[in-house]
Amino acid sequence: MKIVTAIDSMKGSLTSKQANQIVADVFRDEKVDVTQVAIADGGEGTVEAFVTNADGEVISAKCHNLLGDEITADYGWLEEEKTAVIESAATCGIQFLKGIPETHPQNTNSYGLGEQILSAAQKGAKRIIIGLGGTGTIDGGIGLLACLGVEFFDNQNQLVSPIPRNFKKITRVDTKKMPINLNEIEFIAAADVKSVITGRKGAVYLFGEQKGLQVNELAAFEEAMKHYSQLLLAETDSQEGDGAAGGIGLALRTILHAKVVSGLDLIAELSHLPEIIQNADLVITGEGKIDSQSLQGKVPVGIGAIAQKYQIPVIVFVGAMQGTSDEFEKAGLSVIIPIVNEVSTLNEALKNAESNLRLAAERTKKLLFLLT
Amino acid sequence: MKIVTAIDSMKGSLTSKQANQIVADVFRDEKVDVTQVAIADGGEGTVEAFVTNADGEVISAKCHNLLGDEITADYGWLEEEKTAVIESAATCGIQFLKGIPETHPQNTNSYGLGEQILSAAQKGAKRIIIGLGGTGTIDGGIGLLACLGVEFFDNQNQLVSPIPRNFKKITRVDTKKMPINLNEIEFIAAADVKSVITGRKGAVYLFGEQKGLQVNELAAFEEAMKHYSQLLLAETDSQEGDGAAGGIGLALRTILHAKVVSGLDLIAELSHLPEIIQNADLVITGEGKIDSQSLQGKVPVGIGAIAQKYQIPVIVFVGAMQGTSDEFEKAGLSVIIPIVNEVSTLNEALKNAESNLRLAAERTKKLLFLLT
Repeated sequence: MKIVTAIDSMKGSLTSKQANQIVADVFRDEKVDVTQVAIADGGEGTVEAFVTNADGEVISAKCHNLLGDEITADYGWLEEEKTAVIESAATCGIQFLKGIPETHPQNTNSYGLGEQILSAAQKGAKRIIIGLGGTGTIDGGIGLLACLGVEFFDNQNQLVSPIPRNFKKITRVDTKKMPINLNEIEFIAAADVKSVITGRKGAVYLFGEQKGLQVNELAAFEEAMKHYSQLLLAETDSQEGDGAAGGIGLALRTILHAKVVSGLDLIAELSHLPEIIQNADLVITGEGKIDSQSLQGKVPVGIGAIAQKYQIPVIVFVGAMQGTSDEFEKAGLSVIIPIVNEVSTLNEALKNAESNLRLAAERTKKLLFLLT
Repeated sequence: MKIVTAIDSMKGSLTSKQANQIVADVFRDEKVDVTQVAIADGGEGTVEAFVTNADGEVISAKCHNLLGDEITADYGWLEEEKTAVIESAATCGIQFLKGIPETHPQNTNSYGLGEQILSAAQKGAKRIIIGLGGTGTIDGGIGLLACLGVEFFDNQNQLVSPIPRNFKKITRVDTKKMPINLNEIEFIAAADVKSVITGRKGAVYLFGEQKGLQVNELAAFEEAMKHYSQLLLAETDSQEGDGAAGGIGLALRTILHAKVVSGLDLIAELSHLPEIIQNADLVITGEGKIDSQSLQGKVPVGIGAIAQKYQIPVIVFVGAMQGTSDEFEKAGLSVIIPIVNEVSTLNEALKNAESNLRLAAERTKKLLFLLT
């Protein structure tokens, strides 16, 4: 019998690779063949998933975080395919916010992501995949563009510093100093493809507060973002995906001609997940938290959709769940199994995630074969 | 396919009957036949288990609790068999303790249990089953004996009042005023058959503190109990089971000639549980809390022992578990399934026991049949 494990990372406790390994160790035996596919949605864990599945390497590059502090950040490198995989959160992630004026969204940018792109380009990348998600910036990608040589001028034809505070001053964007070789690279933005750049569900209103904007600052920031985005759009229409990672999606699409794709679909495709699932008897996925009311964009739902096509049953291990089994079943998820083992606090559950997942997998295996 | 549910009550949340019903409702369908057997170990839930399985009735009798307050307490009545089932805790249960001098073990007794025995005798009982467990008294049954006409005298030949404070004064026990008809009744004490009356693991040292004795009172109380128990034993040896329910086991065995049996074994026998299990494909039991280090005397272990004999798999739903699956499997328990659904406090888990158990049963049913 063939089983596929493709479990999303469980935030704060297990990576996708670790979770797959725990479950695979329980299920694998003389009768059960297990294929492990590391998975992510473009956010946290995207680099590890690519590197794990393609047996790639991890490159450390000196660069700057959203604050301008020097850091060392990793990205993935697949030598054979000359492909780099970068997580935007590695340099401009929400983990760098400190609640101080210097980390206010008016003052931070994605410059460090540009540095990682340049590092990959120098290594000879033919394709750069950028996982968008988990950023603490709302800079519309102005920082990374500046790093790549794009210049922003005011109406006095003076260069302005690439931070959102200056959005409204900008009257001209000039790309002529961008290195030519960037044009030869295929850029792919792996994101939640539904994010829009402006509006009530845009990058400012939807995520602004969790990145440090006060409620009374939202309207002005939104106005500035509209002005800036119109410069990049240059009379073309905004698209879904532009709002990903505080608008980095917009910069990558309009200036670097990136294709914006679903992170999960991309990983699934590159790891041949559909073919692997088609040939399996059972799929095991998982997620930190799942809610039948907000399934949109969750990894297990993407997996469920693939499995449903081939009528393969799907088991989902979750840290927490809400909702009814009918709705999960409609999404191709046959059984949702909470891994909590006993009365416990969230901290205990996170701390015990490894053993909780192992025990839940053991129970599940026993039940699956108990009557056979 | 045939399934038996025999789930122990989950203290503070579900009775055995309720838990069986929840699980049976999930599993019963056109292909699955479910037999529900209410179960108990002689303690809380024993009356309900007997009444449920034998379709008996519940009798309410006015009597006194361990404090001497008048209460109405229930016992079970099986008309056809002329059998009464009484829980000692209904009158002298730990729930009546108030931490005041009047409920100190020196001053309380099991008189009310005697009243229930007399009530059952008056109804024409041919057999009285007394479930021992959960009592707040350590009176060696002196209260119930006094209620049944047994007299206790001091060395001045004066009657002494039947409370532990007076144990050491007693020099003579006289049973001649007991009603003759009690001799014609078969008494069965359903208990944890390992309880001894005195010693480090006796009724005083093992349970004294949780019934209100101070540590510095234990030695004197133990001495008094030794003196009293020797009067009842009349130079015979003490036996295991004598210490059950604060020594009520001793009184029932020595004066009423009760047979002391395992509560679970008794219910299993009277409900034909072994035959039902033998003809089943799967047994589902459960318990509030289970620990592989202290399986002794737990309901699921009794069920596991029966099922093991016929090689029938056993699923155990638990509120909480500790220990390794190897040890559970040795006890015939194939899979232990914690019913907690998410990170939660004990209070939330108790409050949500019904839906947690139903959801766990639903998951379990799906997994059992997922690959078939």
